[in-house]
Amino acid sequence: MSRYWSAVVRQLKPYVPGEQPKLANLIKLNTNENPYPPSPRVMAAIQAEMGADAARLRLYPDPSASGLRHALAQTHGLQPEQVFVGNGSDEVLAHIFLALLKHEDAAGQPRPLLFPDITYSFYPTYCLLYGVTARTLPLDERLGLHLDDYIAQADAGAVIFPNPNAPTGRGVPLADVERLLAARPDLVVVVDEAYVDFGAESAATLVDRFPNLMVVHTFSKSRSLAGMRVGYALAQAPLIEALERVKDSFNSYPLDRLALAAAQAAVEDEAYFEQTRQAVIRSRDWLSTELTKLGFEVLPSQANFVFARHPKHGGAEMQQRLRESAIIVRHFKSPERIAPYLRITVGTDAECRALVEAIRQWV
Amino acid sequence: MSRYWSAVVRQLKPYVPGEQPKLANLIKLNTNENPYPPSPRVMAAIQAEMGADAARLRLYPDPSASGLRHALAQTHGLQPEQVFVGNGSDEVLAHIFLALLKHEDAAGQPRPLLFPDITYSFYPTYCLLYGVTARTLPLDERLGLHLDDYIAQADAGAVIFPNPNAPTGRGVPLADVERLLAARPDLVVVVDEAYVDFGAESAATLVDRFPNLMVVHTFSKSRSLAGMRVGYALAQAPLIEALERVKDSFNSYPLDRLALAAAQAAVEDEAYFEQTRQAVIRSRDWLSTELTKLGFEVLPSQANFVFARHPKHGGAEMQQRLRESAIIVRHFKSPERIAPYLRITVGTDAECRALVEAIRQWV
Repeated sequence: MSRYWSAVVRQLKPYVPGEQPKLANLIKLNTNENPYPPSPRVMAAIQAEMGADAARLRLYPDPSASGLRHALAQTHGLQPEQVFVGNGSDEVLAHIFLALLKHEDAAGQPRPLLFPDITYSFYPTYCLLYGVTARTLPLDERLGLHLDDYIAQADAGAVIFPNPNAPTGRGVPLADVERLLAARPDLVVVVDEAYVDFGAESAATLVDRFPNLMVVHTFSKSRSLAGMRVGYALAQAPLIEALERVKDSFNSYPLDRLALAAAQAAVEDEAYFEQTRQAVIRSRDWLSTELTKLGFEVLPSQANFVFARHPKHGGAEMQQRLRESAIIVRHFKSPERIAPYLRITVGTDAECRALVEAIRQWV
Repeated sequence: MSRYWSAVVRQLKPYVPGEQPKLANLIKLNTNENPYPPSPRVMAAIQAEMGADAARLRLYPDPSASGLRHALAQTHGLQPEQVFVGNGSDEVLAHIFLALLKHEDAAGQPRPLLFPDITYSFYPTYCLLYGVTARTLPLDERLGLHLDDYIAQADAGAVIFPNPNAPTGRGVPLADVERLLAARPDLVVVVDEAYVDFGAESAATLVDRFPNLMVVHTFSKSRSLAGMRVGYALAQAPLIEALERVKDSFNSYPLDRLALAAAQAAVEDEAYFEQTRQAVIRSRDWLSTELTKLGFEVLPSQANFVFARHPKHGGAEMQQRLRESAIIVRHFKSPERIAPYLRITVGTDAECRALVEAIRQWV
């Protein structure tokens, strides 16, 4: 604390990212990275951008990221002006909170932003950063999300939820998303699809029909590029324009030359994308089955992680036991409802087997 | 405009960056990039980080950027907790505006942020983004900045100015900065030193003595890495902590793996840094002399650009004439006081000669 701080800084509750350990030889199943390297085209594209002497790095990147936006538009059957790109989906989400999720009624009272009580823990942090009033709606006892609850909140100003949800891994059907969009055209609805490529149904196909929809994707999971920080949003042009205005009032060039080249190459390699995401899905299903055999209750996952608890072992205890076997997984102490659970990233087959063997020692 | 926009988006006036032309064979002297490539160590560091198959790019970068922060601390004779790094100095500045430049008095009235009437045009944009109340103080008739004017503003809450100033290129003496810091310990003073390495005196040497000082640097100019988007701030730990809190409430990993590796390698190559910045200084001084011979009034520059006007030709006219010779330079239509000027980036010796020859045709 310092007298030089603006008032807003005092009340922030910064997000705490998962550990990025500097030790080698750990099996790292704690931050939902892809176990497979990025497409070989990524390496080639970075090399091509650097050329013989990296001289091009002296020049600013394209502030409009037009190559990447065109590639994404093509992939999703949309227009480039329906695509916004940013420095990881976290930056994209931050701009969304400021640009599209802060609303008041005619009397100047806040219309709250709705999100689940158990969800991506960055959402309440963004609310504090930008003064967005939040209202959380509880998941059911199986940690399921019911969008009809959101339709019923007459005074709301906007909605955000991940599909599949984090850290539960559970998805909602596209028909439910569509019903929300149609029932509440007064609300901006943001569907945060960081994990959608591992088995949930993307709302990207609804963008052309619903002017109140924004869909957020990331390159950090299904595209194996967490290290390059690229995320994007899809929506009709007026919503994208709001993000562009915020971006151009914040940082004109959020993506560097190598990140732009890497992301575009990753998007263009559809075959590799398909192959690796299917491999992750297979490993996840194997892992869920094995953990169930060991007595775990495993939530049905549509993500690249599983969320599981064991009747005889607490979450913190299991996390500690795995760390003693050089395996790191994520455990959330709060909210209390999820304290019994571990969130385990789906690794390679060898990593998944090592995890199962380690657990077998003490379960 | 859309009914889904938050109120703040409607009132933004986004910054317009200089053109990044896609045509080759243009002589590009419009966005103050360095004419020389980055240190050869940059290329090597990026290759090392990628390894044989770029597999490491699947993993998140170090959110604390500890390697880069240590290298910067060493260069400046400071501690790592006195260093903050971000996605270009524009992102660093944005966080500073929110975290440190928004203040109120005891009665809840805004204490204005002071900056020059002619300066980096992103400052008023940040003020609109974060609701910071601004007061501009005029430069003198030779576009000089007088910090005593700032000392005299009793109700102020903070000060920001570039040293050397943009787009004038004129610096202020370190003694003047020190007098401001000592006279007004109630104010956060941000010295934006994007261009300092080309001849001005850095206030980084004052960080240990003044708890109200923050100094901002970029890798985009003297380090030849505009394409990689890295900037940083130096200050005592409590001010840096404010920026960390905002960053961790916005985007945990603003620098990707290759940007971190590139920037650290650039900092560590002191010899290359010294050689290229001296080359730019020599070219600037030659260019200033030649333009003066051609009848220009050239402001004394301590940056990697010159700011110059001609008694017989307007700014817009000269910009257009140069474009016809495939040379692009920056012209600011407003404020009106600077409309007669061109801001010309110092290029290679060959580029500077081509510029002078092109001007000689019509001057």
